[in-house]
Amino acid sequence: MSDIFPVVVGIDFDAEAIWTGRQPELANRPVLLSHGTFAVRAGLAPLLALLAEHRIRATFFIPGATADRHPEAVRAIHKAGHEIGSHGHAHRPVHTLNAEEEKKELVGGIDSIERVTGSRTRIWRSPSWEWSARTLDYLLAEGITVSTNFHDTIRPYRHMRDGKPVDLVELPVQWHLADAPYFMYGGQIGRVIHASAEVERIWMEEFEAMYDWPGTFFHLTLHVQLIGHPGRLAMLNRLLHRMRARPRTRFFGSAELAATIA
Amino acid sequence: MSDIFPVVVGIDFDAEAIWTGRQPELANRPVLLSHGTFAVRAGLAPLLALLAEHRIRATFFIPGATADRHPEAVRAIHKAGHEIGSHGHAHRPVHTLNAEEEKKELVGGIDSIERVTGSRTRIWRSPSWEWSARTLDYLLAEGITVSTNFHDTIRPYRHMRDGKPVDLVELPVQWHLADAPYFMYGGQIGRVIHASAEVERIWMEEFEAMYDWPGTFFHLTLHVQLIGHPGRLAMLNRLLHRMRARPRTRFFGSAELAATIA
Amino acid sequence: MSDIFPVVVGIDFDAEAIWTGRQPELANRPVLLSHGTFAVRAGLAPLLALLAEHRIRATFFIPGATADRHPEAVRAIHKAGHEIGSHGHAHRPVHTLNAEEEKKELVGGIDSIERVTGSRTRIWRSPSWEWSARTLDYLLAEGITVSTNFHDTIRPYRHMRDGKPVDLVELPVQWHLADAPYFMYGGQIGRVIHASAEVERIWMEEFEAMYDWPGTFFHLTLHVQLIGHPGRLAMLNRLLHRMRARPRTRFFGSAELAATIA
Amino acid sequence: MSDIFPVVVGIDFDAEAIWTGRQPELANRPVLLSHGTFAVRAGLAPLLALLAEHRIRATFFIPGATADRHPEAVRAIHKAGHEIGSHGHAHRPVHTLNAEEEKKELVGGIDSIERVTGSRTRIWRSPSWEWSARTLDYLLAEGITVSTNFHDTIRPYRHMRDGKPVDLVELPVQWHLADAPYFMYGGQIGRVIHASAEVERIWMEEFEAMYDWPGTFFHLTLHVQLIGHPGRLAMLNRLLHRMRARPRTRFFGSAELAATIA
Repeated sequence: MSDIFPVVVGIDFDAEAIWTGRQPELANRPVLLSHGTFAVRAGLAPLLALLAEHRIRATFFIPGATADRHPEAVRAIHKAGHEIGSHGHAHRPVHTLNAEEEKKELVGGIDSIERVTGSRTRIWRSPSWEWSARTLDYLLAEGITVSTNFHDTIRPYRHMRDGKPVDLVELPVQWHLADAPYFMYGGQIGRVIHASAEVERIWMEEFEAMYDWPGTFFHLTLHVQLIGHPGRLAMLNRLLHRMRARPRTRFFGSAELAATIA
Repeated sequence: MSDIFPVVVGIDFDAEAIWTGRQPELANRPVLLSHGTFAVRAGLAPLLALLAEHRIRATFFIPGATADRHPEAVRAIHKAGHEIGSHGHAHRPVHTLNAEEEKKELVGGIDSIERVTGSRTRIWRSPSWEWSARTLDYLLAEGITVSTNFHDTIRPYRHMRDGKPVDLVELPVQWHLADAPYFMYGGQIGRVIHASAEVERIWMEEFEAMYDWPGTFFHLTLHVQLIGHPGRLAMLNRLLHRMRARPRTRFFGSAELAATIA
Repeated sequence: MSDIFPVVVGIDFDAEAIWTGRQPELANRPVLLSHGTFAVRAGLAPLLALLAEHRIRATFFIPGATADRHPEAVRAIHKAGHEIGSHGHAHRPVHTLNAEEEKKELVGGIDSIERVTGSRTRIWRSPSWEWSARTLDYLLAEGITVSTNFHDTIRPYRHMRDGKPVDLVELPVQWHLADAPYFMYGGQIGRVIHASAEVERIWMEEFEAMYDWPGTFFHLTLHVQLIGHPGRLAMLNRLLHRMRARPRTRFFGSAELAATIA
Repeated sequence: MSDIFPVVVGIDFDAEAIWTGRQPELANRPVLLSHGTFAVRAGLAPLLALLAEHRIRATFFIPGATADRHPEAVRAIHKAGHEIGSHGHAHRPVHTLNAEEEKKELVGGIDSIERVTGSRTRIWRSPSWEWSARTLDYLLAEGITVSTNFHDTIRPYRHMRDGKPVDLVELPVQWHLADAPYFMYGGQIGRVIHASAEVERIWMEEFEAMYDWPGTFFHLTLHVQLIGHPGRLAMLNRLLHRMRARPRTRFFGSAELAATIA
């Protein structure tokens, strides 16, 4: 693998679940939910078109509740050849759940995806990027083989249990390579909207420097409702062109890259 | 419509109501309120002059309480030929109201505008961009035909009730095309003031990319108290010139654009 | 006055009072207080030197508690020929005080300044930029003739009582022309440190546009502990040079400018 | 010393202690902790390599709990010739501790470092940059001779007790010369991630201006988990080259510089 530089594009397709997962009472706020609906109604189609144009296979992380609510959109993603990962069921943060709830969220999310796509996913990203002390056992029991949650390094690695490697590869993520810190807003005090060109600058700073570090990979995290706006997609298009212009760049689905890890 | 690109300029003229709507006790803080008064005393006249210079018909959204307090300013807006929309009565967020309060806020706001301008508006933007489960029925009952509240897409659309289209067109809005995320401050921790040139960059990024997306429109949201400062108006002037330099750009009032939607 | 463009430089010299005014218990946190001490120990001397180099008479706003604690520093400011305004006594926000407390803060602050400088100031800026319903009467009773608190316009004006002008001129301020939104940090989540060059850009955007608006003036608000760092003073030096390069620019003390208002 | 300009690079090596010091219950959140683990697993090695390339002796500040947990990493830092300072034991903020707790944190932190490195440090930086009224006595009792905590000036100075200088030199720090305000995120609302190039601009603004102020020094504060990413290290590399290109620049360890202060 040392002669190539892997890039993985992980995309959260949360839709309304991003709001209702933490606070179910927000179901009564249709305008707030409409920020999530944007993913389904406006953002998804041009994002899929852009990925197709670049011939990139991405990994979409989808809450079960979103698959239940928007099965056609999920089938469109699946049909376009992208990997589908589970993103919990109702987008509830793992560290706020008891054992039974965590299990139910995990299994329920995987089940919903299977009902819509016909196949059982082995890729998982927790809602809100957290694990509990139980999560490793639960993931192994459910046959999950790829996790995209930890921030502890910039190289893929295999999880360990009792000092021994297990059948679960971690593809670590970084907040500064996600779109949420720069584009998530929703009118909340404390959030700041950045120019797309500024985000491109931050991501390319990291890409250029990382490109020459052996064993690393570039792991981009997007949200359909945030990146799926015209100006931001134009930036993503520029970014993908710039990455592809480097000779060693290769795009991987999460499971594809994980399969190369010893 | 496919040979033109519509631009709608929606302008909130809140004045003091922006503070007192959420927290009536702020009426005892004259300096805080003076941030809102800026709209009346300093910001409005040059903003109207700039719009006239560009021959743009904008839509002003005005809380009833502001119309009651500053009728001369509202008449100046009306006389300049701009559309007037209702922006609630006391700028109270809809999702915090019970049925009776919501109805009263809605009707009271429309009534106040009518008393000042002599005509009954059919355009409505909720204070704080929210609806309740009752809002659709209430709007239809009051004869509102244009809503500028939802964030779920970048194309105008007709609202549905029980699966059938109703006489209410939505002109969706976007936070990143509003001035508040970049200019609202008031000394609150968590807010950040941006350079006007940076805001121009963000808006033009989106305008340029959106210009080529069929069926979309550019929906700018301004607040008189925020945009009505000399440097920011200079930026808005540049922005309007840049938009007008593109051959397919056409400016519409909210009701004008809504009238073209099937 | 129409052939000149007035610039007023108002400078808060808070020192430790900026922390202890709102939360007296912070007196037990010497490192936090040291952010304020920076004004006395490091920031003041080079700021005074820079103002002298540009031959600018500024207005320093000083809490009485700071005058009590650092009389030598206050005398240095006074001796350099700058105007001295009162900034309350203990930097307690006016809207949190009852009538007796407000009176005591006002009179105590003015008294402390008088003890150190030998003259009774007629210029006042409230701590945290707020008034109460009582403030106008109190200011008139104490002989204050210049207030620099309101945000309602960008032109100086005379305050009114019962519909008649009184002997108190307002020199309105603007948050985006203050240094605090860009430089105040103290480790608090929600605050953001900007590059000096970015702040220069924001201030010059406003200066350039305002320069051609009749009757306006540019009112800069600085804090010694924030602006008094080498890189920021270098920016201020550039800013002052750029402002002075415009032929109609004239620098005024607050009382000097207020004296020209009918 | 007037013919040179000292630069001190202070680096916090917190690892997981940055989260658990304030909120021990966070020990149950492995993904959140993994932000800290990044320092050990990914950030440290390339940062040490970069410092070696520039032949810079830095000062690493290490919580005792981190030394206990990651002794190999601490030995690698020590072996590379850098100074090691204590950074408390469990990274608990000093102003939240009673006398006994403060003493225990101080002594425990120093003891842990000694167990791992074999020598007793005389350099101390408090977790969260705070002191109590007891701290000076405690530091002198433990033989600490260098403190890097206060923000009151930009020149090194000797602490005083009862009006007399004591055997403790302060090397003051500045938030805007730290990486945390620009890079710390962790998904918290109110935090903002900056481009590395923007941070370089802020730091160089200050460096260039400070370079000509007699008696000052440039005190950079880094965190391994924040700066140790490829793009940020590339920026640090550029920064160090630019600083070294100035003829009077000299890099010092904290204790080295403190030893030159009368």
